[in-house]
Amino acid sequence: MTTQYGEFMKNTRVLLASRPVGLPKTDDWQIDSVAVEQPGEGEFLGEVLYLSLDPAMRGWINEGKSYVEPVGLGEVMRAGGVVRVIESRHPEFAVGDHVVGMSGAQKFWVSNGKGVKKVYPDLAPLPRYLGALGMPGMTAYFGILEVGELKEGDTVLVSGAAGAVGALVGQIARLKGCRVVGIAGGEEKCRYITEELGFDGAVDYKTESLQAAVRKLCPDGIDIYFDNVGGETLDVALSILRLNARVVICGAISQYNKTTPPEGPKNYLSLLVNRAKMEGFIVFDFAARYSDAIRDMSRWIDEGRLQAREHIVEGLETFPETLLMLFDGRNQGKLIIRV
Amino acid sequence: MTTQYGEFMKNTRVLLASRPVGLPKTDDWQIDSVAVEQPGEGEFLGEVLYLSLDPAMRGWINEGKSYVEPVGLGEVMRAGGVVRVIESRHPEFAVGDHVVGMSGAQKFWVSNGKGVKKVYPDLAPLPRYLGALGMPGMTAYFGILEVGELKEGDTVLVSGAAGAVGALVGQIARLKGCRVVGIAGGEEKCRYITEELGFDGAVDYKTESLQAAVRKLCPDGIDIYFDNVGGETLDVALSILRLNARVVICGAISQYNKTTPPEGPKNYLSLLVNRAKMEGFIVFDFAARYSDAIRDMSRWIDEGRLQAREHIVEGLETFPETLLMLFDGRNQGKLIIRV
Repeated sequence: MTTQYGEFMKNTRVLLASRPVGLPKTDDWQIDSVAVEQPGEGEFLGEVLYLSLDPAMRGWINEGKSYVEPVGLGEVMRAGGVVRVIESRHPEFAVGDHVVGMSGAQKFWVSNGKGVKKVYPDLAPLPRYLGALGMPGMTAYFGILEVGELKEGDTVLVSGAAGAVGALVGQIARLKGCRVVGIAGGEEKCRYITEELGFDGAVDYKTESLQAAVRKLCPDGIDIYFDNVGGETLDVALSILRLNARVVICGAISQYNKTTPPEGPKNYLSLLVNRAKMEGFIVFDFAARYSDAIRDMSRWIDEGRLQAREHIVEGLETFPETLLMLFDGRNQGKLIIRV
Repeated sequence: MTTQYGEFMKNTRVLLASRPVGLPKTDDWQIDSVAVEQPGEGEFLGEVLYLSLDPAMRGWINEGKSYVEPVGLGEVMRAGGVVRVIESRHPEFAVGDHVVGMSGAQKFWVSNGKGVKKVYPDLAPLPRYLGALGMPGMTAYFGILEVGELKEGDTVLVSGAAGAVGALVGQIARLKGCRVVGIAGGEEKCRYITEELGFDGAVDYKTESLQAAVRKLCPDGIDIYFDNVGGETLDVALSILRLNARVVICGAISQYNKTTPPEGPKNYLSLLVNRAKMEGFIVFDFAARYSDAIRDMSRWIDEGRLQAREHIVEGLETFPETLLMLFDGRNQGKLIIRV
């Protein structure tokens, strides 16, 4: 109970050193090493095993409140992690338990248990709790089923289709009886989503004319556009909406690192002509129903109907560089650091 | 039954002569005079008494299908009208009946009765059937109550607030227990919506800084933005959305005459941060429920809780010039031509 980790173990932490202008640079981060904190009464100490890297992180390090407070300068970078409890003074968490929570980008984490959830390595590989059974999975599930109001027979277009959320969105839509076209960068990703994930079609935005290629694959228009990227892609999607279409705004990764204001969707009046809606959401709002989603997603994975791929990079120290993989599209599936 | 109007009466018609580039010019129209047509079996002949002038007309004369087919070159301009039946071979319409329908911009109209509805001059002044009890009224009613999902206590921002639709939207929101701020051009219109229509506040976009003035009047943000204008105003509204806000896209009059692509709303990611939605609609989709709306609107007018103002201009020949009043904001209330 009183193992003094602090005395002989060091905590490595990734701190936000300065607010990035445009793409985050290496020296926007500082990696330090400090004594491991001791858990107080009602707290536990955990060892961070895996960290989730998410496009949303780019927003968290901007100044000004968005849907969460920004990470402060000199603070540990906010990040979700899979954590093993190694010391506990908390009644609900025992040594040896595995949990997920907002551990931050560091090797050790002292938590009061708030927002922490137990996970089970015998039910699923631990990294999956940051992917299909974690925030990206919940985002895909509630985004396409609830916000997108998915109906059997819909034609669904997904951008960032080989990414953590996009790959799941497309597969969920497929197994609900929809036709799904994905937009991804590069031949390999396009082959992945069609041949391995079962998408009905793929558009390679790096080599094809978006407008022409999307229209060719969706000649009768689309009922849902699930947007992870924004920019020109959103405008192309708006131009082919069907009546009563739904545009789900999940993200806008093409805009996050811009130093100029984001481009607005010029074709937004397509919403009027087609009686369509464009709606944003934040996955946390569905937290009360995560267990339903996890039950469904787990079953689909067990039945072999849903593939969950994680892209794992070794070493917490790689954080500044690994994060950039999200923005130049080098990851395929959920990007995770093994700490 | 066989009055030969054609022989001694002429029909004056406003034809689309060329597709306008930017603001419609006088010579984009041609006014001609032809023999009055005879109604065939199952048709009636009507005399057009009042014509509705609507911002949507600008879209109808563009090339390319929108939610309706464009008006063809050389065709009578599409327009809704109040019409008196003067000859009938239609079982449901008798001489002396008053009806509303898409009569077109002309003095006489032969109709097969499709989409035509009887109206009653003893229940309301005839022009009102083109305003509060017509398309603008239905647009305001279903737009704010259904698409906007208006709830008591909401803060509602309306642009084009002294226009046919905006003035009604604001008043409906007020009588449903909401706080309403209107955006209009000029001191007179602003005084009109606050002093006569009971809006809680007004912003004069011609003399005030939109962003500052709207923020001052809506310090806690807005639950609904009812957009008739688009452009910068839409962006300002998006910047102050509250959680779960609704943006109703009814029109974008600031963009209709532009020769460049419309500006997209740069602040659209506010939809994501605030879990908000932006939705377009076309009033025709609610046609099956018009009678409910007319019943409510009539009652509110009779009770003195809803003011319906019509701005009436004399003479069909003024059509080309009168239409422009919509685009430079010279009308106050529903713009109508007395034919």
